[in-house]
Amino acid sequence: MASIENTSMTNALLIHINKFADLSEEQSEKILSCFVSKKYQKKEYILQAGSVSEHECFIVEGCLRAFVVDYKGNEHTLRFGIENSWIGDLDSFFKREPATYNIQALEPTTALMIRVDKMNELMRTMPEFEQYFRIMFQYGVMSLQKRLVQDLTLSAEERYTYFTEKYPHLLQRVPQKHIASYLGMTPEFLSSLRKKISQK
Amino acid sequence: MASIENTSMTNALLIHINKFADLSEEQSEKILSCFVSKKYQKKEYILQAGSVSEHECFIVEGCLRAFVVDYKGNEHTLRFGIENSWIGDLDSFFKREPATYNIQALEPTTALMIRVDKMNELMRTMPEFEQYFRIMFQYGVMSLQKRLVQDLTLSAEERYTYFTEKYPHLLQRVPQKHIASYLGMTPEFLSSLRKKISQK
Repeated sequence: MASIENTSMTNALLIHINKFADLSEEQSEKILSCFVSKKYQKKEYILQAGSVSEHECFIVEGCLRAFVVDYKGNEHTLRFGIENSWIGDLDSFFKREPATYNIQALEPTTALMIRVDKMNELMRTMPEFEQYFRIMFQYGVMSLQKRLVQDLTLSAEERYTYFTEKYPHLLQRVPQKHIASYLGMTPEFLSSLRKKISQK
Repeated sequence: MASIENTSMTNALLIHINKFADLSEEQSEKILSCFVSKKYQKKEYILQAGSVSEHECFIVEGCLRAFVVDYKGNEHTLRFGIENSWIGDLDSFFKREPATYNIQALEPTTALMIRVDKMNELMRTMPEFEQYFRIMFQYGVMSLQKRLVQDLTLSAEERYTYFTEKYPHLLQRVPQKHIASYLGMTPEFLSSLRKKISQK
């Protein structure tokens, strides 16, 4: 891992935080001093289930996939992460327990990483940073709530249509098999569903 | 709805907040002035899907169930809420959109309710209140993440065993049919599963 030097990289994080909280120059420097940057190649893992998550990751560039493996050995995609979003296994990160998530790069990826002691210190000592994460976690609850409800209540076609409307940019960046896995269907079922929708 | 007078009722909320943030007396009074109390009878709804959620609820006494109805008309229980926890449809509450959750009292219930303008005002003006909700939302993300992962990766027996270990108090308070619905199985399947486990 490298200390942070690249300006456009660090700017991405500060710009994101400043959308939700006003940082002074001193606070910006303090925050950056708590992060390290890392590059991942396509297919490289940033976290593997069973190991403790050492970092929460702010994605500067690239695309990642978080997935779990069920008791039968099948993969299920939980979410995709792209530029200007956070990804990690929060349960493992905060409780220092083995992760259930696997997180793998789908594209060459650059991320800014923070350890739990630095994260807790920043939240404890800087109200603006805590405000930023109050909002991030609030959005996280709302997004997970929506995902859970949609999985339970929508038909396969409704789930796919919602996905194409909400994440049109992902359709080009993510292999179909992972989109199918995210939507809880086989690649073959997704393929026939797309065909059916295009013929409408 | 009633203004807050009952001391043991308001104490429950203040005790809970003080576990995570230190409130002054003045702050405690300010917070209480933003809540109203309400009692619900068994089976009464505190929120119905399709209406906008007007309040987030802190449960002082009682037990509630949040559930959704799928496109086939089947109910799915998302979670149970008991004393000293929050329940609501956050997406609807913060975005002023129609709720997807139904929330119904399973027991006579007393709750402290706050409107979104008061909630946002307290978070904006009182760092301790924001800290409390940063932690509540952080726990919320971790809990929803765990729920999603377990639904996808564990066998029916593993899900039931986890539930009995994590929520032993709910086994006595909540009808079996709702526990079955929470675990994603029919009441008949849960009944045969319990029989099988008890014979081990």
